[in-house]
Amino acid sequence: MNHPERSLAKALIYITYKNGVLDPQGQAVKGALASLGFEGVGDVRVGKYIEIELSDSPPEDMEARAEKMCRDLLANPVIEDFRIELPGAPDAPVAPDER
Amino acid sequence: MNHPERSLAKALIYITYKNGVLDPQGQAVKGALASLGFEGVGDVRVGKYIEIELSDSPPEDMEARAEKMCRDLLANPVIEDFRIELPGAPDAPVAPDER
Repeated sequence: MNHPERSLAKALIYITYKNGVLDPQGQAVKGALASLGFEGVGDVRVGKYIEIELSDSPPEDMEARAEKMCRDLLANPVIEDFRIELPGAPDAPVAPDER
Repeated sequence: MNHPERSLAKALIYITYKNGVLDPQGQAVKGALASLGFEGVGDVRVGKYIEIELSDSPPEDMEARAEKMCRDLLANPVIEDFRIELPGAPDAPVAPDER
């Protein structure tokens, strides 16, 4: 049997706390940097960076699938923003949550 | 007293496991996506995305300071790679660990 050619493309997902949401891990990093002697450090925010290999058939569907993954599992839309980049896609990177 | 004008610029830091290092969180996400019915999902890697506001004086020093922060605190160079972007900087984004 011949299967149709199917390849995987990467979706890059950035998840950050919304502005105004307390980020305890960021505060801890800021304190640790200060105690290590780093000066001139302002706000620190710690988020997640996720690389997912997705079947690229159909390619125009990848953004919608990655967005659904964020909403269903990866991000908490109440307190987190997410941003999706499709480096292999013909279009510019997309940022569904920031427009 | 007049302090010299000092502003903060953002450094964006991406920390990922090196290739070949087992990523249990990524495996867990992959399994969860499958159990939610997402198909065509390949490898999943979960890393950290850190935004740090740094004093930009001197600006040419920001990359070195961010790199030192990664080596001293943020990343574990034995098993993790890091990449630094300075979106406000005149030069192109830098990737000290991937060249």
